[in-house]
Amino acid sequence: MKSRAAIAWEAGKPLSVEEIDVAGPKAGEALVRIVATGVCHTDAYTLSGKDPEGFFPRILGHEGGGIVEEVGEGVTSVKPGDHVIPLYTAECGECKFCKSGKTNLCGAVRETQGQGLMPDGTTRFSKNGQDLYHYMGTSTFSEYTVVPEVSLAKISPEAPLDKVCLLGCGITTGIGAVYNTAKVEPGSTVAVFGLGAIGLSVIQGAKMIGAERIIAIDLNPNKFKFAGQLGATDFVNPADYDDPIQQVIIDMTDGGVDYSFECIGNTNVMRAALECCHKGWGESTIIGVAGAGETIETRPFQLVTGRVWRGSAFGGVKGRTELPDYVGRYMSGDINIDDFVTHDLKFEQINEAFDLLHEGKAIRSVLHF
Amino acid sequence: MKSRAAIAWEAGKPLSVEEIDVAGPKAGEALVRIVATGVCHTDAYTLSGKDPEGFFPRILGHEGGGIVEEVGEGVTSVKPGDHVIPLYTAECGECKFCKSGKTNLCGAVRETQGQGLMPDGTTRFSKNGQDLYHYMGTSTFSEYTVVPEVSLAKISPEAPLDKVCLLGCGITTGIGAVYNTAKVEPGSTVAVFGLGAIGLSVIQGAKMIGAERIIAIDLNPNKFKFAGQLGATDFVNPADYDDPIQQVIIDMTDGGVDYSFECIGNTNVMRAALECCHKGWGESTIIGVAGAGETIETRPFQLVTGRVWRGSAFGGVKGRTELPDYVGRYMSGDINIDDFVTHDLKFEQINEAFDLLHEGKAIRSVLHF
Repeated sequence: MKSRAAIAWEAGKPLSVEEIDVAGPKAGEALVRIVATGVCHTDAYTLSGKDPEGFFPRILGHEGGGIVEEVGEGVTSVKPGDHVIPLYTAECGECKFCKSGKTNLCGAVRETQGQGLMPDGTTRFSKNGQDLYHYMGTSTFSEYTVVPEVSLAKISPEAPLDKVCLLGCGITTGIGAVYNTAKVEPGSTVAVFGLGAIGLSVIQGAKMIGAERIIAIDLNPNKFKFAGQLGATDFVNPADYDDPIQQVIIDMTDGGVDYSFECIGNTNVMRAALECCHKGWGESTIIGVAGAGETIETRPFQLVTGRVWRGSAFGGVKGRTELPDYVGRYMSGDINIDDFVTHDLKFEQINEAFDLLHEGKAIRSVLHF
Repeated sequence: MKSRAAIAWEAGKPLSVEEIDVAGPKAGEALVRIVATGVCHTDAYTLSGKDPEGFFPRILGHEGGGIVEEVGEGVTSVKPGDHVIPLYTAECGECKFCKSGKTNLCGAVRETQGQGLMPDGTTRFSKNGQDLYHYMGTSTFSEYTVVPEVSLAKISPEAPLDKVCLLGCGITTGIGAVYNTAKVEPGSTVAVFGLGAIGLSVIQGAKMIGAERIIAIDLNPNKFKFAGQLGATDFVNPADYDDPIQQVIIDMTDGGVDYSFECIGNTNVMRAALECCHKGWGESTIIGVAGAGETIETRPFQLVTGRVWRGSAFGGVKGRTELPDYVGRYMSGDINIDDFVTHDLKFEQINEAFDLLHEGKAIRSVLHF
C-alpha cells in the first residue's frame, strides 16, 4: 500500500515528505496507522549523522500513537481497530530479560531492530523499489508503519492519541526513571539536570512520588517556569556560579542530594550529577544519550563512599504491561501531558518541528497526519 | 605510659620498633592493649608515600584485637577488661549517616581521624616529646593505643583475638560487601577480581549467601587453590587469554555475571569488572582503593543498559552493631578466618610481615605482641 512518510535520505539533510510503499504485516507483525507522533531529540541525533548506528535511507520516529489496521499470522494480542503505542523497547514476556523480573530490556527483536529491519531480516518500506530502513522498531514518521506484535502496547480507545503518543518516549522515560530505576522515596531531595521533555517528566515523577525538594538545573532559565508548575522547588542556572555545579548543589543541600538525574546526554554533566549526590547513599541515574564513543569518568572514591551510578532506558518501563496504566493516569489527571505539547503541526511541517527542537522553542511538537 | 610501637618515621622506609609514650584516654576515649594485629595493604599503601593523606611520623595499623585497659570520662559502652576490635569506621548512632539507615559511614570522628588526630584535635602518642600521628583512628601497631569509644566494637571474650583481629578489616569488608552492599541473591553468578584477603572473603561471602557460580580471577594462579576451598567454582588467569577479561567472562557466562567485585584498586580492572556484568541487571562493587587522583571510566551506555556501579567501604558493616555477630559466626564455624592467617609473627618482625605482603606470599600475617 501507499503511505505518506518523511524519508531521511541522508545524514544532516531535511526530511523529505513523500509517498512510499508499505508491505503488509508478516507473521507476528501488525500494520498500524499512525494518528500522531512526537519529535524527539533522539530522532534529531540520528538524523544529524552522529549516531554510529545511523544508516540511511530510513523512516525515523518513535513517539507515536496509532490504530491497528491489519495483523499478520499468529498475532493474537492486538486486532484491527485497537489503539496502540508502538514501543522501541519491546516486551515479549519470554526472553531471559523479560523473565528476569529485573529489567525492561527485552531481547526479542533487539538485533534486527538495531539493524533497521523487521525480525525476519527484511524491511516493509520501499520507494521506487529501493528499500528504506526501519528505525527503533517503530518508524512513526510514516502514516502506515509495520511493527512487531511484541512492540505494541494496547491502550484505551478513549485516550487522545495526539497526546498519549508522548508516552511512547519522553514522558514515560522521565516518570519511569523515578519510579522504576531510582525508586525515589517520599521526602527525598532530587536534582534534575536538563529541562527538556525527559527532565521535566522526571520533575513530574518526583513530585508524584513525594519528593520534598526538587532542584531544576538548566542553562536556559526560560525552562524554569514550567519546571516550577510541575513541582520543582529550586532553580539553578550553572552559568550564575563560579563553582562547579556539583559543589553548588552540595552547598545548597547540606551535603548533596538523595537522587540525581542526567537528562541531557553530556558526559561532563553525568559526572556532576553523580558527584552532587550525598555521601553514603546518593544515587545518580543517567537517562541522556551521550555521543558515540564518549565516556564517563569519576574518582572511584565517589562510589566507595556510598554513591551509586545507574542508568535508565525507557524509564525501566515494560511497555505492554505498564503503558496502559500510564494512559489511565493521564486520563485521570495524574500525569500531565497536555502542557508538554507546545506545538501542534501538520505532518507535512515535520522539518519545522525539528527546527523548533533545535532552537529550544518546543518542549514537544506533535505532528498530526 | 610506655608502649612498644612501630613508628613510621617517613614514607618508604621500614618501620622502627621503639618505645613510645602513650597518654591516657581523654573524655570519650579508651586505652586499649592490642594483643594481635594484622598487616593490610592499606598500611603498606600509606607507608609507601603514595597516600596523599599520608603524613608522618605516625603509628600505622588498623586490623587489631585488644583488651580495654582504661576508659576516659563519660565512657559507658566499654569498661576495663572488655575485648574489643578497633574500628576505622566508627558508629556513633547519632549522626545523620548513622541515623539514615542507609550507610555505615559514620561522620562522628571522620574529620580528625583523617588528620591523624583524636577528636579533640591532639595526639596521644609521642616520642621524646615529639608528637606522633594516629592512623585510621586505630593505630594498632602500638601495644597500647587510644581509640574513641565510638570506634570500639565490644566482642565475646571467648574469641581468640589473634584470629578475630582480621575482622577489623579484610574479612569483614569482603563478606559485608556481598551481604550489605551488593546484596547478592542465592543462585547468582559472581565474578571476583583479585584474590587477596578481601577477594577471598568475597568468595567466602558469596558461597555463604548461596551464589551458584563464583568466578575467581587473578594473575597469580597460586591463589586459585584456596579460592576453591572457600567456594570458587571457576578460575581465570587473564594472562591466559588474548581477549579483554570482560569479554572472557561474558563468553563464559552467556552474557555476563549478576554481580562482580573489584578487590585490587586498579582502575582498569574496575572498568572490566563493570563491563563483565550482565546487561539489564548486573551490578559491580568497587572495594579496592585506587591511587590518588586516578579515575574510573566507561561508556555511559554500560549503565543505560542496566548495569549498576557501586562501591563499598568496610563492607557496609556498622562495626559496633554487626561485628559481635561476625565474631559469633566465626566461633560457630560459619566464617573461616584461620586459613587466612598464613603467618604468625612476633610484633618485632613487623617489617618481615610487610615483605611477605609485597612478595604475595602471605594472605595475612598476624603480629603477636
